[in-house]
Amino acid sequence: METVFIVTALVGLLALISAFVIVVKIRRYDSGNERMREISGYIHDGALAFLKSQYKYLAIFIVVVFVILLWAIDLKTALAFVVGAVFSILAGYFGMFVATKANVRTTAAAMHSQSRALKIAFSGGAVMGLCVVGLGVIGIGFLLLVFPEDTKSLTGFALGASSIALFARVGGGIFTKAADVGADLVGKVEAGIPEDDPRNPAVIADNVGDNVGDVAGMGADLFESYVGSIISAVTLGYIVLGRYGAVFPLVMTSLGIVASIVGIIIASKGNGENPQKALNLGTYVAGLLVIIGTFIVSYLIFDGFQAFFAVAIGLVVGILIGRVTEIYTSADFQSVKTIALDSVTGSATNIISGLGVGMFSTMIPTLLIIVGILVSYFVMGGMGNPTSGLYGIALAAVGMLSTTGITVAVDAYGPIADNAGGIAQMADLPKEVREITDKLDSVGNTTAAIGKGFAIGSAALTALSLFASYAESVSLKSIDLLNPMSLVGLLLGGMLPFLFAALTMNSVGKAANQMVTEVRRQFREIPGIMDGTGKPDYDSCVQISTKASLREMIMPGILAVVIPVAVGLVFGAETLGGLIAGAVVTGVLLAIMMSNAGGAWDNAKKYIESGEHGGKGSVAHKAGVVGDTVGDPFKDTAGPSMNILIKLMSIVSLVFAPVILEYGGLLLKILN
Amino acid sequence: METVFIVTALVGLLALISAFVIVVKIRRYDSGNERMREISGYIHDGALAFLKSQYKYLAIFIVVVFVILLWAIDLKTALAFVVGAVFSILAGYFGMFVATKANVRTTAAAMHSQSRALKIAFSGGAVMGLCVVGLGVIGIGFLLLVFPEDTKSLTGFALGASSIALFARVGGGIFTKAADVGADLVGKVEAGIPEDDPRNPAVIADNVGDNVGDVAGMGADLFESYVGSIISAVTLGYIVLGRYGAVFPLVMTSLGIVASIVGIIIASKGNGENPQKALNLGTYVAGLLVIIGTFIVSYLIFDGFQAFFAVAIGLVVGILIGRVTEIYTSADFQSVKTIALDSVTGSATNIISGLGVGMFSTMIPTLLIIVGILVSYFVMGGMGNPTSGLYGIALAAVGMLSTTGITVAVDAYGPIADNAGGIAQMADLPKEVREITDKLDSVGNTTAAIGKGFAIGSAALTALSLFASYAESVSLKSIDLLNPMSLVGLLLGGMLPFLFAALTMNSVGKAANQMVTEVRRQFREIPGIMDGTGKPDYDSCVQISTKASLREMIMPGILAVVIPVAVGLVFGAETLGGLIAGAVVTGVLLAIMMSNAGGAWDNAKKYIESGEHGGKGSVAHKAGVVGDTVGDPFKDTAGPSMNILIKLMSIVSLVFAPVILEYGGLLLKILN
Repeated sequence: METVFIVTALVGLLALISAFVIVVKIRRYDSGNERMREISGYIHDGALAFLKSQYKYLAIFIVVVFVILLWAIDLKTALAFVVGAVFSILAGYFGMFVATKANVRTTAAAMHSQSRALKIAFSGGAVMGLCVVGLGVIGIGFLLLVFPEDTKSLTGFALGASSIALFARVGGGIFTKAADVGADLVGKVEAGIPEDDPRNPAVIADNVGDNVGDVAGMGADLFESYVGSIISAVTLGYIVLGRYGAVFPLVMTSLGIVASIVGIIIASKGNGENPQKALNLGTYVAGLLVIIGTFIVSYLIFDGFQAFFAVAIGLVVGILIGRVTEIYTSADFQSVKTIALDSVTGSATNIISGLGVGMFSTMIPTLLIIVGILVSYFVMGGMGNPTSGLYGIALAAVGMLSTTGITVAVDAYGPIADNAGGIAQMADLPKEVREITDKLDSVGNTTAAIGKGFAIGSAALTALSLFASYAESVSLKSIDLLNPMSLVGLLLGGMLPFLFAALTMNSVGKAANQMVTEVRRQFREIPGIMDGTGKPDYDSCVQISTKASLREMIMPGILAVVIPVAVGLVFGAETLGGLIAGAVVTGVLLAIMMSNAGGAWDNAKKYIESGEHGGKGSVAHKAGVVGDTVGDPFKDTAGPSMNILIKLMSIVSLVFAPVILEYGGLLLKILN
Repeated sequence: METVFIVTALVGLLALISAFVIVVKIRRYDSGNERMREISGYIHDGALAFLKSQYKYLAIFIVVVFVILLWAIDLKTALAFVVGAVFSILAGYFGMFVATKANVRTTAAAMHSQSRALKIAFSGGAVMGLCVVGLGVIGIGFLLLVFPEDTKSLTGFALGASSIALFARVGGGIFTKAADVGADLVGKVEAGIPEDDPRNPAVIADNVGDNVGDVAGMGADLFESYVGSIISAVTLGYIVLGRYGAVFPLVMTSLGIVASIVGIIIASKGNGENPQKALNLGTYVAGLLVIIGTFIVSYLIFDGFQAFFAVAIGLVVGILIGRVTEIYTSADFQSVKTIALDSVTGSATNIISGLGVGMFSTMIPTLLIIVGILVSYFVMGGMGNPTSGLYGIALAAVGMLSTTGITVAVDAYGPIADNAGGIAQMADLPKEVREITDKLDSVGNTTAAIGKGFAIGSAALTALSLFASYAESVSLKSIDLLNPMSLVGLLLGGMLPFLFAALTMNSVGKAANQMVTEVRRQFREIPGIMDGTGKPDYDSCVQISTKASLREMIMPGILAVVIPVAVGLVFGAETLGGLIAGAVVTGVLLAIMMSNAGGAWDNAKKYIESGEHGGKGSVAHKAGVVGDTVGDPFKDTAGPSMNILIKLMSIVSLVFAPVILEYGGLLLKILN
């Protein structure tokens, strides 16, 4: 068994080494002219400044939670928490560091060829992907070696990952949209200067935001799902099938990392003419390798193919959820065209239409998740042995996330390409360069939408398997909806995502307002800013977004952590179980709705800009811009923060299970 | 026991007689000048034309369902279904008939005094209220007399009520918003003529829509909740406490009707200077009478006060949910002011702000419902005897709905006042008359928002008590969320309200487009329509809304009826239980969100129109209009249709319980 832990950690090391090799290669590429390096430097420094400010808060946060865990649970869990938090921070740091080096090199490469630009942008993303999976399994393997056969410490690790994800994803979402909306409202609308214009004081914050939100935020989100799903599978596997049950998901994971590395190599050697095809090819090859490998491993370990089917259905459902997202958010399909058409009669019809598309788009992903749950449960014999069935669901989650390495790579490619375009614009490079970066960027929009769908699906399955582990930990026999205590939990849990979404959208609004005020001030007070002789104070805008993102996530963060524990203590373990189930259901639905509506609005605007329904400047276009602006906090702040909410609440419940088991249900004790 | 049934029916008769007396009084009032009578005639005829078209569909629908019930269940249930449907139709017919007579008399009275106008408008609403409760209890009392001790037939009655509510509320919601949006987009925006201008071909359809949606639709919705809650309480009461358990809710109901009649008399004698105060006084007196009466009855029947507390908490929660609605939707509070302020930066920030308010506003009502559930469950001893606790929840629902008579009266007053204003405008009456009708109308907006909150709260409790009855009927031991079959039901059920909302919003969009085309055609083809020499073809617009409302509700209607039965047959009773729970949770949350966001947008626009942030014609005002237009289908179509969806699915499950018990769970049978 120890051998497996060591091998797992070694495969993780392999991922990190691959990442290092890629970094060395990227740094060798040309970083363009002085102006390009200057701009890229601003973005790089801004991103690191954000991280440094965040670390101050995180240090306090980690110490406080460490003490609480030490007091309420035990030292192992507390230590594992610190390791989980630090590893997530490291993955984010490496990813952001490289992404902000790769962006300018992508721009420089675009001066020569599209295929080289694609290669660099994707390689930059691959570093984030490999760091996520590498650090994830090194952490898990290491903890299993140090604290063998004690899965409690693993939950601490997952809690650490979850906490950082909260800061990175929710805080990052607020950062990026405050900068984006602020830059657009004053720059584009009031001052009439184009996107990514260097005279706009918020432009660097906007470009930093792409990295903060879409590289570090997305990475931390999937890091959390990744380790959460593995830990659930290991925990449940150990209960159900002993050693082999715990070993299988680890072997699977190693397999997935190797498959991801192969996929990344294939994608980065791919045809530069069709970037989407290259990225797809890498993803599919990685998926196929996992399927083949799992088929063999399942037979070797279990002497049967049940585990294979559970993993395979997870992987297939994950890919399908991503693809379905495209149907609702790509201009090649009907939904986006309908929104564009409805924009002709104005903003109101555009909004109604987009909300309708978002709501409607919940159907197929939900059905896919349901199929994933049923197949993985029954194939593992859930009818005879429920816990074994729950292990099947956990395996499906692991399967879905097995190719996280390349999934994150494809995802993180988007903001790098986006940044590359921004640098080209700010450095006033020729039109041909922008055309290449635009093409790469538009592919990035599609991969971002697919990635969001995938992140939601994996969050749902991860939360469900953490939920199953929680139920095991507190020895829950049932969460019975005929018992009002569960029903009350369900209602309360169902409401939380609405509240969380309202809070985060509100935060974006407040932060954007501050940004607007600051940009206006600079336009007014800095002489020569509009004719390019005065230099805008980029840093103050980065500061505003940074401070807002940290301040505004305190309230939602406390809610997500305190409510599960409080509900468990007052109402007991069953109500808390209902709470998690309710939160998962509405959280997933709202996440799908908001993310798809946002993506659809975005592309409907671009579709109109391409000349449909009167093109730029038409009534339809104005309506399209309104839809896109509403969609921004939907798809980049409130929507993704649902993933964090449901996973964090599940993991908090799991970690505090011993406390809830002992002291929970005060209300009932009083009533009795 | 028979005596109680007879007394209940007699109290129902008393309500109908009171309604008749009011009708006679209303008809005695002056119906204004010829022009006013002409316009009122159009509205009246349009409303009846809508009803007649609807009846054709309903006749077919009733026959089909009758045959299905006869085949799948039994004759009693099938007959009771027909009675329930016919009674709901009758209540709607009477209510609409009188409302469309009272509107012009309210206008005429406004030429003399505000207090007389208030009296007539409220009396018109009171007829709807008294018909709802009167026909409701007559039907239940009659069925209990004919089929004593057989509660199965009662579920057929509730199904009848539910089916008609689907047509009236969802179809009515589509009718009214198609007309409203169509009239506004072409009339106000394109042609630049004011609201309620007689030159607008859609103006009559718009006024008819107020009656169709807000009188008949709201009436049918509450008729469904009213009979549904009584039937659940009677069914569960009989199981738990025998005769007395069944008798208590009936006595309570009779008490509530008498209290409502007293409240109506007080409200209509109230001070005309402050309409809101008069309406509130009537409502509070009725509530107080119910509380006092229940205190005594609870002691007499049960020799204790547990039942009293269960009823009282329901009544209090119902009133509080209504009042809380005001906080989020009235311009006197912060939320609406914030939306108005956010409108200054344009439509996008107005929309984000409104959606945030809607989402945030789910918190307190959810907590109130939770308190209602917990108190009514535990006070009836749910900890020792779960079924007894569920009876407590059913009693809370009956308590909440006990004053339905006056609640509907206050609600239906709104559209009558609105119509009265429309008639004053169209008949070109002096400014002073409009001022009075405007004042009455603005009170109507508040009562409408409160009524919507109340309708959602009562739908939630009614659905939950129907859900409890369903669980009893199929002898479910548990709906265990640790069993994936329940979890799958929960996810599927949670998704349905999103789908339903998308479908109904989409329907409004399609129907409104047809209306826009028709109005444009008339402006183009009818000579002299703009200078008043040509007469618009009002009838064709009414026809368009009518046809659209009937056509567009087929799909959602089939979904609501077929899915529960199909899920029960394929996956079994437990999955169906999960489905209902999931649908109730997201249905209630979406209903609150959409209804409050819609109300808040509406009043934010009015607040801006009152001169804030630049007043009419400002950027803020344009944004406010966009928000209001988005809010229209939210608050008047998709939001209220959630109530119908969750109740209809619960009652369908309850009626088909015997079939599901016998044949359900085909999938598991195959897998086994």
